[in-house]
Parts: sequence; C-alpha cells; structure tokens
Amino acid sequence: MLNPIYEHKVQYYETDKMGITHHSNYIRWMEEARVDFLSQIGWDYAKLESMGIVSPVVSVECKYKTTSTFSDIIRISVSVEEFKGVKLKLGYLMTNAESKVVCEAKSEHCFLNQRGMPMRLSKEFPALYETLTELAGEV
Amino acid sequence: MLNPIYEHKVQYYETDKMGITHHSNYIRWMEEARVDFLSQIGWDYAKLESMGIVSPVVSVECKYKTTSTFSDIIRISVSVEEFKGVKLKLGYLMTNAESKVVCEAKSEHCFLNQRGMPMRLSKEFPALYETLTELAGEV
Amino acid sequence: MLNPIYEHKVQYYETDKMGITHHSNYIRWMEEARVDFLSQIGWDYAKLESMGIVSPVVSVECKYKTTSTFSDIIRISVSVEEFKGVKLKLGYLMTNAESKVVCEAKSEHCFLNQRGMPMRLSKEFPALYETLTELAGEV
Amino acid sequence: MLNPIYEHKVQYYETDKMGITHHSNYIRWMEEARVDFLSQIGWDYAKLESMGIVSPVVSVECKYKTTSTFSDIIRISVSVEEFKGVKLKLGYLMTNAESKVVCEAKSEHCFLNQRGMPMRLSKEFPALYETLTELAGEV
Repeated sequence: MLNPIYEHKVQYYETDKMGITHHSNYIRWMEEARVDFLSQIGWDYAKLESMGIVSPVVSVECKYKTTSTFSDIIRISVSVEEFKGVKLKLGYLMTNAESKVVCEAKSEHCFLNQRGMPMRLSKEFPALYETLTELAGEV
Repeated sequence: MLNPIYEHKVQYYETDKMGITHHSNYIRWMEEARVDFLSQIGWDYAKLESMGIVSPVVSVECKYKTTSTFSDIIRISVSVEEFKGVKLKLGYLMTNAESKVVCEAKSEHCFLNQRGMPMRLSKEFPALYETLTELAGEV
Repeated sequence: MLNPIYEHKVQYYETDKMGITHHSNYIRWMEEARVDFLSQIGWDYAKLESMGIVSPVVSVECKYKTTSTFSDIIRISVSVEEFKGVKLKLGYLMTNAESKVVCEAKSEHCFLNQRGMPMRLSKEFPALYETLTELAGEV
Repeated sequence: MLNPIYEHKVQYYETDKMGITHHSNYIRWMEEARVDFLSQIGWDYAKLESMGIVSPVVSVECKYKTTSTFSDIIRISVSVEEFKGVKLKLGYLMTNAESKVVCEAKSEHCFLNQRGMPMRLSKEFPALYETLTELAGEV
C-alpha cells in the first residue's frame, strides 16, 4: 500500500541567520521525498540507473507558505500531477506538526538514455510508463 | 554605473554523482546574485537589516536549460520584473562561457518589519520604493 | 536506555562528481548525530538554548576510511571522550551496512552564556555537568 | 609569482541560526582554496583528472578561532606542510578583514590511479612530484 508521506527533520545546518530554514533546502527535501516516492512505487533510483535511465530535473517551483526551523518535522507528500509519456510533473505538499502548509512545490523531469537522448518510455520501459500513467490518473 | 552581472565559479562540492552541478545550487546562486544586485543599487542586506527591513523569499522558480559543472564560470544577470509596492519580482538569467543559457529563474520577495508585519515601502522607505519602481520600469 | 546509534541515509545531493559522498557532509552528519545524542541523554538543543547555554564547535577532525555514496545507510555512534568541566570532547564512529568503518571523527565544544562568556557548568548547571562527567567516565 | 591567498565572501546561505557561519562551510572553503592553489602552481583539477590522477581527501582538521558571518571576506592561505611522495599534507590559515585568525586547518590527500590504486608520483608524474616536494621544503 502506497504511503506517499516522507518525513524530514530540519537540521541545525539547514537554518540561516534569520533563524529559519534557508529556502534552498526545500529543493533538497523535494529530492529526498521524490527518491522515497519512486522507491515506494517500485522504481528506486538505483534500479532506474541500472536500466540506463537518467532523469534530470527540468524545472522546480517552490511557494513558501510558513517558515520552519531547527528540529521541526516536515511531512512531504508527493503526487504525479501529469505524465503523458515524455515529461513527468510532480507535486509536493509540505506540512508541519500543526498540519499547516509550509511549502507547495512542483518539479518537472524528463527521461534520457545514457547518451543523453530522450526516451519513449511507453516503448522502452512500458512497466514504468504504466505505473506513472496510472498515478497521474489518480489526481 | 549599474553592472548587473554577477559571476559564480562552480565548486567541486556543488557537483553531484551525475557529474553536473546539483540543481539545488542554482537557488543559492540566485541569492548570491541578488545580494550583489541590491548592493549595486545602493541597498545592501546589511543596510536593509539595520533599517529593520526583513525581506523573505516568497517563491522561487527555476528552469534548467543546459547543465554546468565544476570550474565553469556562470554569469548571472538580475532584473526587477515587477514592483508595485508590496511584492518584488526578480528575474535571473544565467549563462555559461559560451553564452549559452544555463538557467532562467524568478523569485518573489515581500518586505516585513521586525515584528513580521508587511510594510508599505512607499510610505516607510520612499527612497527604496523609488529605486525599485524605476528599475521595474526599465523592463 | 541509551542507544547512541544514529542513522543517516546518504542523499543524492550529498554526492559529488567522483560519485561518492562529498567529504564535507560528514561534518554535518556529526552534528545530526550529536543533536540526537544530546536529546537521548536528556539535553536537547532546544532545552540548552532555553537555559541560555550556547555551545559552539571549537574544533572538528575527520579521518575518512571508506567511501560512501547515495542511498547508503550510515550508522553513527557518539561517545563522550573527555569532559573536565570546560571543554567537551566527543568521538564519532561511522560504519556502513557491512559494518565497515566509513569515518572516525572528533569534535570539541565549549559552553558559553548568552553574552559569549565561558560558563562553569559544575556551578551553573550541575545536572548537565554530572551527566557529561559520568558519560566521560564510561570510556 | 605564486600568490597563495584565496578570498571567499561568506554567503547568506552559509550562516546558521546562531547568526554565524555554520562550521561545516570551512571544510568547503578549504576545497575552494585548494583548487585555487593547485591551479596557481600549474596543476589544476581538470589537468590532474585528465592525467588519470584521483586525489581523495584522507582527513581534515579544523580549529575555529573567531566566528565569521554573512558578507565577511575571508582570506585563505594554503601551504604544503609535508610531502614525501605518497601523502600530501596541506595547511590552511583563514583570516578576516581585521587580520584576525578565523580558522586554522589541515587536510591530507593521497594520489590514486583510476583503478583506485595508490600511485608513486616520483615515478609516474615526476614533474608534479617535484613541484610538491619543493613547496614542502619552503615551510
């Protein structure tokens, strides 16, 4: 059963002199949550890499809603917002212990082979294609 | 004379196991370029903070166009995309030594006083208000 | 019961272009493990800070034994190596899933009040003083 | 003429909630200064890598003397403390604008070929061997 909630505890080194989490760290937590999410749906990074699939980040977007700080537990849910075979769009909702939204974010990814050429997942990796298509349909 | 070009040399610790700059670092370079830009227009962070102005990041957005890697020199130009007194929208264009676009980015900022309340710059800091309004007009 | 083992999963953003964890991250994991350790012995950072105790890092030392990389689970044990009332010396042993030593490290800390002056813990915070003295004796 | 002074401007994202530079960043500045130093003595990383030389960090050591914070300019001098053909020991002295010592540090490095085996520089890369031996003699 898929539990798309990933938890990150804010580290001291992630704070800045304003006393809050530096905004760049949320981009890193998106990656942590994404790695966890892919692993939960059966496609962890190691597996993708061993299959010769490279999936670079094409864009990110972050809206900061509430500040967080050292030792806060941030809960991050990941969802597939769109997937039509080429570009994968993911959504992230980060909430704190009071269930207040800390950050809303998006990222886009493409799929390349090891020569850096775009792949048609539907043809080359139909199982991954189907998993992502199904998840996109759930939104 | 305003020279809105900031240069960042990619550090080894900014690369990841794909052999390229990790995408989260571009968010940090935006901050480096923004700090430099504010300083060039006569409003460095130290001055803003000493005046009791806090300017948190409300959102960021990054479109990755070309990868970069260790020891590349990235040129970053910053522009005021919009400013109507409350929210400041900045744009960033990052290019490499071949003048190829590496990354296009945006950030939004608001202005708070030290109790965390929104400020009306036009009233409280008219000189800063005017500088930003003028720069927004140049776009 | 004290369980001084802290686990850190290596993140993708912690790797570098050599394909391994960048060496600077181990210093950050020491902090993660130290925060967890202090919390386990009943003295978490929040408590220390609320009591007006500031405990800066005076020195760090890291010997890298085996490389680690993305998605490795690193187990970190922390021990009090020396404490005679002023300087706290901690030791760290990091091992991987095969129980191979990844890194051996040390850090030194002092205790200051909020005006930045050294504190005599034995007098001002005898309970913390005793806990640390006892743990140092266990080595 | 060798000028082993490297300058690093402290970035906002390098500070922590104590209002000072987080101690882990000094390890990264050591790398920045080391890369610059190697480049100045005619052996930049790109050249070393193209020759098939891998030079991992074996250990680091940092003594923090004075805090630094956002927008401080840190001057870092690098020196070869010891080199007898296998292990390279470097020393770092970091000072602030008032010439006060901020941090004293050391790092150790070895030289491996691309199969991860130790190299005898005196035999395989005599020119690099001689440069480092000479610099070690200057101490």
